[in-house]
Amino acid sequence: MTAPARSGTGARLAEEARAGSRRALSRLLTAIESRTPAAEEALRALYPAAGGAHVVGVTGPPGGGKSTLVAALVAEARAAARPVAVLAIDPSSPVTGGAILGDRIRMQQYASDRDVFIRSMASRGHLGGLAGTTAESAAVLDACGFGLVFIETVGTGQSEVEVASIADTTMVVQAPEMGDEIQAMKAGLLEVADLVVVNKADRPGADRAAMQLRSMLTLGVEADPADRAPDPDRPRPKRPAVLLASGLDGKGVPELLAALDEHQAGRAHAQRPHAARIARARAQVEGILADRTREALWSSKRRAATDALMERVATHELDPYAAADDLLKSL
Amino acid sequence: MTAPARSGTGARLAEEARAGSRRALSRLLTAIESRTPAAEEALRALYPAAGGAHVVGVTGPPGGGKSTLVAALVAEARAAARPVAVLAIDPSSPVTGGAILGDRIRMQQYASDRDVFIRSMASRGHLGGLAGTTAESAAVLDACGFGLVFIETVGTGQSEVEVASIADTTMVVQAPEMGDEIQAMKAGLLEVADLVVVNKADRPGADRAAMQLRSMLTLGVEADPADRAPDPDRPRPKRPAVLLASGLDGKGVPELLAALDEHQAGRAHAQRPHAARIARARAQVEGILADRTREALWSSKRRAATDALMERVATHELDPYAAADDLLKSL
Repeated sequence: MTAPARSGTGARLAEEARAGSRRALSRLLTAIESRTPAAEEALRALYPAAGGAHVVGVTGPPGGGKSTLVAALVAEARAAARPVAVLAIDPSSPVTGGAILGDRIRMQQYASDRDVFIRSMASRGHLGGLAGTTAESAAVLDACGFGLVFIETVGTGQSEVEVASIADTTMVVQAPEMGDEIQAMKAGLLEVADLVVVNKADRPGADRAAMQLRSMLTLGVEADPADRAPDPDRPRPKRPAVLLASGLDGKGVPELLAALDEHQAGRAHAQRPHAARIARARAQVEGILADRTREALWSSKRRAATDALMERVATHELDPYAAADDLLKSL
Repeated sequence: MTAPARSGTGARLAEEARAGSRRALSRLLTAIESRTPAAEEALRALYPAAGGAHVVGVTGPPGGGKSTLVAALVAEARAAARPVAVLAIDPSSPVTGGAILGDRIRMQQYASDRDVFIRSMASRGHLGGLAGTTAESAAVLDACGFGLVFIETVGTGQSEVEVASIADTTMVVQAPEMGDEIQAMKAGLLEVADLVVVNKADRPGADRAAMQLRSMLTLGVEADPADRAPDPDRPRPKRPAVLLASGLDGKGVPELLAALDEHQAGRAHAQRPHAARIARARAQVEGILADRTREALWSSKRRAATDALMERVATHELDPYAAADDLLKSL
């Protein structure tokens, strides 16, 4: 948002994307990642048309086979003629690549299928926060007719957990065999899970892993320490279901898609507030506010003054709270 | 900062922590994690005394043996009678635990050593951003006389890369043998590295891994794509050194600590701006600004209005940009 919007670019992209242009849709998502003025214009145009999609967060430790499982879910959705999109948050690099690439190649069968859209997003350098731009991207896909949107992340960082919080349904995927370090990550991840999937169910130990997870989840519910009270803004079933599946051979995948649909239907019929939608709204609005604030700080008009202030904090002449209050007064 | 500061609590904690009370120091770091009014008061009191410590970021994929290597570096620093602190960012859970616990136990030998301080920090739920609170914690340790502060993170998420950006020296640790998925993470991590360590150097393939890394880093420098231009605010040597070490038996650890010291000395003598110090200042100030903004939004006075606005965004009646502008006008 540093330059004035070339008026109309965003609106035109939005219109073309809704009409089915993948090129326009791709450009739009790039614009959102970089928070350009065109992105703002496009999102404002598309936002009223969004709100119907089921946003599914897919997370879990590396090596759990998330991408393969998502590919199997996409195939299952396409067999039922449902339009489906995938946003893969790639922690490795600003350019698409790495581990996800192999699965992207697997997805090339959909190159000519207009009802499948797959996109890798960088997880670094988001000015307004990853959760915010991801929610905006999901809204764009939603407005363009993708009724099922998977957001795939590697579940080891804070941002990834935040992304999970903006999904209607969060699915945590893991393989039967897990190292100690990865085991340790589970506790945090399981807190955000609506569904837990033991993937690679053909491997030895899958049933046992599922059993262990079920008992761990039961314990978790009963022994929740006070300082880890569940977020009141995010009500969810006390104990997520544990399912077995195999992304590789498709076993359990129809049941998994059915469970996801069922979770969404349960939410829709419940009287409770649409917590995930509120979380998405907050992530977007707070992301935009942070972006606007940062923009004001580093605008050409203020940049020199902000730089001077940061220099004083860097040399410990001024403390950061005093600097923040100075800036707030001047904004 | 939701309640007015009980005046004096923070100042007293700061004074006791500087005088050597570990209990006060622990309480202070907890206060910073929760961003209480006492934390603000204490940081403001301590900030002028900080600025001398060498802050070393330690990151890398899970399973690289970071904690063991940090333990070995701590032992090496203590052998030279240097006070040393470790902030371990634990992605698993708000409570200390998981994989890091094993190494914490190894660290218990320092329980009676007043010049070693080890602390696990939660990576989730930081109101003002993980990088900001980590920088504040490092400043407190610095002011309390810890001249060497290690910040240990699992290098797979955005927040972790952000944390690396606030360190004076960033060290990326990995084991000789790495799976495909982890391999993919390296590209992003290597961008932030000042030093790369192949840990577990006693294992087969360590020399080969170091060689591969060196050639990958050479390629990286020569073939840096335009859209991955290095951050101008963070100048660093074009090609980080690759070292071999073994945290378990201590091989290569003295050389590693010497290389860290040398990197810091190089920075100190260089004419270029103190980029890491500026990054730390920015992380803290921007974190505090985000916190103050969020605080204003959800204050008891405004909460109902903010809730109503979020509801309108959640139901797609209002777009998030319009909501953000509404809020900015009212703040």
